[in-house]
Amino acid sequence: MNSPLQPLFAARLERLRTHMAATGLDAALISAPEHLRYLFNYSGEAAFGIVGARTSSLVTDYRFIEQAEEECVHHPWRQGVTTEALCRDRQRERLGQTLGRVLAELGARAVGYEAAHVSVAQWADISADLTGLALRPLADVLVQARCVKDAWEQQQIAKAAALGDAALAALRPSIRLGVTERELANRLERLLQELGSEGLSFPTILGFGPRSALPHSAPSGRTLQRGDLIVLDYGAVVNGYRSDMTRSHVAGRAQPWQQRMHDTVARAQQAALALLQPGISGRALDVASAAVLAASEFAAHAGPGLGHGVGLILHEQPFLNGDCEALLQAGEIVTIEPGLYIRGQGGVRIEDDALLLDSGHQILTQAHRDFELAL
Amino acid sequence: MNSPLQPLFAARLERLRTHMAATGLDAALISAPEHLRYLFNYSGEAAFGIVGARTSSLVTDYRFIEQAEEECVHHPWRQGVTTEALCRDRQRERLGQTLGRVLAELGARAVGYEAAHVSVAQWADISADLTGLALRPLADVLVQARCVKDAWEQQQIAKAAALGDAALAALRPSIRLGVTERELANRLERLLQELGSEGLSFPTILGFGPRSALPHSAPSGRTLQRGDLIVLDYGAVVNGYRSDMTRSHVAGRAQPWQQRMHDTVARAQQAALALLQPGISGRALDVASAAVLAASEFAAHAGPGLGHGVGLILHEQPFLNGDCEALLQAGEIVTIEPGLYIRGQGGVRIEDDALLLDSGHQILTQAHRDFELAL
Repeated sequence: MNSPLQPLFAARLERLRTHMAATGLDAALISAPEHLRYLFNYSGEAAFGIVGARTSSLVTDYRFIEQAEEECVHHPWRQGVTTEALCRDRQRERLGQTLGRVLAELGARAVGYEAAHVSVAQWADISADLTGLALRPLADVLVQARCVKDAWEQQQIAKAAALGDAALAALRPSIRLGVTERELANRLERLLQELGSEGLSFPTILGFGPRSALPHSAPSGRTLQRGDLIVLDYGAVVNGYRSDMTRSHVAGRAQPWQQRMHDTVARAQQAALALLQPGISGRALDVASAAVLAASEFAAHAGPGLGHGVGLILHEQPFLNGDCEALLQAGEIVTIEPGLYIRGQGGVRIEDDALLLDSGHQILTQAHRDFELAL
Repeated sequence: MNSPLQPLFAARLERLRTHMAATGLDAALISAPEHLRYLFNYSGEAAFGIVGARTSSLVTDYRFIEQAEEECVHHPWRQGVTTEALCRDRQRERLGQTLGRVLAELGARAVGYEAAHVSVAQWADISADLTGLALRPLADVLVQARCVKDAWEQQQIAKAAALGDAALAALRPSIRLGVTERELANRLERLLQELGSEGLSFPTILGFGPRSALPHSAPSGRTLQRGDLIVLDYGAVVNGYRSDMTRSHVAGRAQPWQQRMHDTVARAQQAALALLQPGISGRALDVASAAVLAASEFAAHAGPGLGHGVGLILHEQPFLNGDCEALLQAGEIVTIEPGLYIRGQGGVRIEDDALLLDSGHQILTQAHRDFELAL
């Protein structure tokens, strides 16, 4: 089997194997859905991956075995480095027994596992069947690897972002006085679907008026009134990769305080974007953006944090906040999303997805930023 | 604050407290999303519930605090038994510190936690801040409590099931030769949304022809051909409660083997439904249904397992299979879904949701069962 994506998947596995060799691990048990996708191209459920020094296996059951066999096509099948999908008979074998059998075939003794992606109860069950092995939490090598997107990943996120842009343009006629948050969110989600998004990047956040001040407002029956602030935060999915964008509007003409609020957030975003390039820390970006908010009349209403990486999952490393000392790298894709939230009155947030280039960055989300909507 | 649902939520908390008292627990830490909804009416993310002998708290952060305050309205606020939503400042306090502070205020020493709903890594972080407490996995008291649905829960699932029925009726004109699985799934999901479903009970399973033999087929670009078997498995959500239904059709006239396959599955379902009433075990139902499949010419193609409980989550107790010795109780809602899957040719599954009555049962899913679709 050959696939143009094989070299990408091979490189991902190689990076994990290099880490395993360096830390004395003979095998790694993979359970995070995003890592099953990242390493095996598997998008189903109920699976564990086992990566050994030369071979890898995906253990699932009858419900997902065909899907596993179909999706693992991007895997490197060169001689001696094979991938197999294994179907566990759940009536006959506990999961820990199956994993133990594969690990024994590998001759593995030191085994890493994803402590952040297996529950206390499930790990107690599994590890009871893995006697005689040295089980150690795997460091965050895959989380770190996923920060920098390869060219194919960049394309998928760029496509998702463009899909989100197109959906917002098509949504414009539906933004009218009297529409409910729920109706508008439904319409947007339908547009995303029609345009080809695989689903929603996350449940749409949409708030009118005072509800726009809720950072994670679920769409309600609230109708749009003239003068309302509108916050709309949503994303598309392409081949498992997500986009994440927020636009803020006012229904009709902005009152002076609303305009100043919007301008303040826009300047806070610009302050971060002006610095966004490889070598800067997430903390420095956060400081620059937060300083704009803090110097404004709205200082008491600033939301914490500036943004996050986005990829196979919505919120991933790097997290752009005061704790982020890591220096950003070319190929990372991050959101830049400062916001102001006045409880009982309304909120403004502007969020874009930016790809870090070797020098500077490129904004992937290009939907219009007009604040006032003529209604 | 008063809400007509207060007595229901009070009864749920009381059941947990009775269990805590019986097992010597001073407090319980709740982290499963379905249990945060079941006990607190909370549907957001990033929260921990703390239930003490007389008080309960929901700890979240700035992103979800308004939602928590809004949603906890069904809680009993009678004197001395209060509920509060707490906003943790993530910059200043680790989650374990906040939980430890609330537990200290309760004077708790023995504390139960949901081992199946906290990761090994998160629990290591949290428990490091909970020194001096006896931490014990909570038994599955909430999972068991959720098996039997109260009158309000029954209504929500019945509404979800009726919504699914209406969506399928409205979908009928779109089932035509040449339509792709993905187009048809999109149309169905849009209908569910328009009819008022809060989202999808689960990602729609839809397969034409040979793809109908995949128990969890994700909709693809495969077009509908005359003579194809069609398996369509989907559900609606109302107030967090799910439905789950499968219908199987053939595009046009059935070939004799297809008709026999469908009739066999229908008889297997009837064999289980004929026995479905309080006091029967899940195992006995599974045996009765499996016997029909095993006695048929399609014995080699029978899917394992008969069904499962459905409620706040899609697959919940009781699981109707060979391991289920528990006796079913009035108020439980279970799926009955035997299936035959001939790899490379096609599958047939028929699934309905049934509410166990004091005597007998009631089928909640009433969508038509016509096998042949005139196309």
